[in-house]
Amino acid sequence: MKQVLSYIKKNKKGYVEELKDYLRIPSISTLAENKKDIEKCANFVAGKLKDAGLNKVEIFKTDGHPIVYGEWLDAKDKPTVLIYGHYDVQPVDPIDEWTNHPFEPVVKKGKIYARGANDNKGQNLVHIKSVEAYLKTVGSLPVNVKFIIEGEEEIGSQNLGKFLKKNNKMLKCDSVLISDTSMYGDGIPTINYGLRGLCYMEVEVVGPNRDLHSGSFGGGVANPINELAKIITKLHDKNGKVSVPNFYKNAKKITPKEKANYKKLNFSDASLAKELNVGALQGEAGYSTLERLSGRPTLDCNGIVGGFIGQGAKTVLPSKASAKISMRLVPNQDPKEIAKEFTKHVLSLAPKSVKLNVTEMHGGLAFLMDLDNPTIEAAARATTRAFGKETVFTREGGSIPIVVEFANILKAPIVLMGLGLDTDDIHSPNEHFSLKNFELGILSSVYFLDEISK
Amino acid sequence: MKQVLSYIKKNKKGYVEELKDYLRIPSISTLAENKKDIEKCANFVAGKLKDAGLNKVEIFKTDGHPIVYGEWLDAKDKPTVLIYGHYDVQPVDPIDEWTNHPFEPVVKKGKIYARGANDNKGQNLVHIKSVEAYLKTVGSLPVNVKFIIEGEEEIGSQNLGKFLKKNNKMLKCDSVLISDTSMYGDGIPTINYGLRGLCYMEVEVVGPNRDLHSGSFGGGVANPINELAKIITKLHDKNGKVSVPNFYKNAKKITPKEKANYKKLNFSDASLAKELNVGALQGEAGYSTLERLSGRPTLDCNGIVGGFIGQGAKTVLPSKASAKISMRLVPNQDPKEIAKEFTKHVLSLAPKSVKLNVTEMHGGLAFLMDLDNPTIEAAARATTRAFGKETVFTREGGSIPIVVEFANILKAPIVLMGLGLDTDDIHSPNEHFSLKNFELGILSSVYFLDEISK
Repeated sequence: MKQVLSYIKKNKKGYVEELKDYLRIPSISTLAENKKDIEKCANFVAGKLKDAGLNKVEIFKTDGHPIVYGEWLDAKDKPTVLIYGHYDVQPVDPIDEWTNHPFEPVVKKGKIYARGANDNKGQNLVHIKSVEAYLKTVGSLPVNVKFIIEGEEEIGSQNLGKFLKKNNKMLKCDSVLISDTSMYGDGIPTINYGLRGLCYMEVEVVGPNRDLHSGSFGGGVANPINELAKIITKLHDKNGKVSVPNFYKNAKKITPKEKANYKKLNFSDASLAKELNVGALQGEAGYSTLERLSGRPTLDCNGIVGGFIGQGAKTVLPSKASAKISMRLVPNQDPKEIAKEFTKHVLSLAPKSVKLNVTEMHGGLAFLMDLDNPTIEAAARATTRAFGKETVFTREGGSIPIVVEFANILKAPIVLMGLGLDTDDIHSPNEHFSLKNFELGILSSVYFLDEISK
Repeated sequence: MKQVLSYIKKNKKGYVEELKDYLRIPSISTLAENKKDIEKCANFVAGKLKDAGLNKVEIFKTDGHPIVYGEWLDAKDKPTVLIYGHYDVQPVDPIDEWTNHPFEPVVKKGKIYARGANDNKGQNLVHIKSVEAYLKTVGSLPVNVKFIIEGEEEIGSQNLGKFLKKNNKMLKCDSVLISDTSMYGDGIPTINYGLRGLCYMEVEVVGPNRDLHSGSFGGGVANPINELAKIITKLHDKNGKVSVPNFYKNAKKITPKEKANYKKLNFSDASLAKELNVGALQGEAGYSTLERLSGRPTLDCNGIVGGFIGQGAKTVLPSKASAKISMRLVPNQDPKEIAKEFTKHVLSLAPKSVKLNVTEMHGGLAFLMDLDNPTIEAAARATTRAFGKETVFTREGGSIPIVVEFANILKAPIVLMGLGLDTDDIHSPNEHFSLKNFELGILSSVYFLDEISK
């Protein structure tokens, strides 16, 4: 272990340069124009796995973006850990609000700024470097290790599920390790035991067959923007509850044990409101903010557009308006069922004066682990060793739909060892990642491979 | 008169070429990037007035875009007609929906397609050609004529009011002739006796100080798009009435005589719904469609934008969302007062969790003429002579704020001799103008100068 740790200490500056190279590749999975960058990024990851000393590295083509696989299986009679991450990133708009170019990484005050710094390039490079540190020093790992780094996480991991099913045997493992979540606070080692699911929809309201002059036609013809606003308004009731019928029917309730755990975390509403510069927080009546952010299902508009959006004024009654609307789900809510209920509900809200197009974009189930699972306990010991502090257990508000598939297909316990911070601006301008957490993350990974081998 | 008419017949093909040259200038008044085109267009108009044979032509600078003035005052003891038009045009987006480039005019099946073809280049060139026909044949006009062609109509004519006040004496006249409205139907000569006013606002909802991940923060932080939708929804009640307090307080009611005139026009809801391809029309309860479109005040969203509007899906809880909202007004509604009431109301609707920025963009008063006015009667005789059909009287839903200023400052009756059609797609892609109406418009103008001289 000493050798491993001193190797990491000696090489940590180089790790940052490697991370920069990784971040320079604009691997935005949702944009067709970045398809070549996605391929370049898959090759980059495969190269890193080879350099780390894995026995076998392979890039698997899919119907979408490629999956990078790597393995080292020489630890006889030892358990196998499968490490998952994704090399694809979110779009960068609004690009004007970035202080550096999102694909030209900059280090400032111990943080690295770039799209993907936290989500997820920084967090998956951690595990590659941990494995490398073992293999370049002691020449072996305490357990068997398999890597899967995919390129479609930000667009719903459509092809990874198929890949898992098809390569079920190759991917057999005793636990799955994923760093794609947040720490509860800076310096507080955290194991996430739950994730929300997702159901992402698009609603288009179509009115007249062309844009109209709002003077000549205003008042006599339904306005798609106004009608869309009415529909969006009707998706919540006065108590902040989602109004889609049967939305909460199967939703797993927060248990008394979890309520107690939430309380123990001493979350400060005032601090969050101050940090976000809002006059008040807001959400579903009857729940604390932390419960609303992770234990309860929600509905948010992610985008809206219609009519004239340039500078100045244009007096138009637009032909159409549309909104992207996503729902975060909790265990036992089925995204397919929710999409159906949502579609039915939204269609029922439209007056005869407009037509609606409702599209299901992507979705994923929620995930929840038992807090007493031995793998979870081993992970908590590892992060406590690395950070020198008691590890806390949280539920995360975001979604990694594939986590549920890992659980269902590979039938292995899943460790969500988050190394990012909620303040890292992932999915936003100026995404960043703490280099301290990058380094302690490598140590956490090293200790986890050690703890899980015992 | 014979000479004048045969001159027009001989030259009408050339008029279309002149109109094309006029339409090739992208004189979009709301976009800073088109400032030079605006100046070019003012020079073009001045050139046309000179070529027509006016005694004096001058371009007046303003704090915004220039005003073109021209006069011919040699008809002693005869009344003076002031002819108004505008050479500026609306923006062209969505440009993808045009079948030809908006500034490369194309003639198809007797119609000319280009931005500004109807609104207002085609309709003001009509009067220049009418005056030219008199001056190039009989060498004189039956009345004195003054032209004002401005460049800020589409952005609220901010500087024309000042110009009218300052040049009150120079502009003295006995009637004002304006062609910037619609005919009731193809081939039906129409005099408009009313216009709606306008109050154009922008509402920005500001939530968190940065775009957030909708997974990590959704459900606990107010979403600016959802809050904006709620605000927009609350701007109408269940009966389609505008909910802004005191909105209807001073609004001039439709008189029984007007109700009768509306009925006489035999408007078909079914035809309009079919033409626009909507399942039903929609508007304020208790009024007919024609009343809603011109005699009643309204509120419409002209544009909305917030969050991710690209292709694909992005799970963002945006920092802000905004909407452009305009109200069409009827006589006795003061746009400044309405803007105040709107602002107060909208601010009162926002929860503590978001901040609001409400901006007044521009506005204008409504206009209504007495149907028995002799100038209106002369105009109706002129259009009946040109089109060979009984002239009808309508109110228009759109706004020409400056019309009220003409009425108030110049104290002269105003004739709205519309030559466009509601189906001409003004302010929309594929704006066009009937060349038949262009020609009959020139004749209507010739006859009006004749009728008003009697």
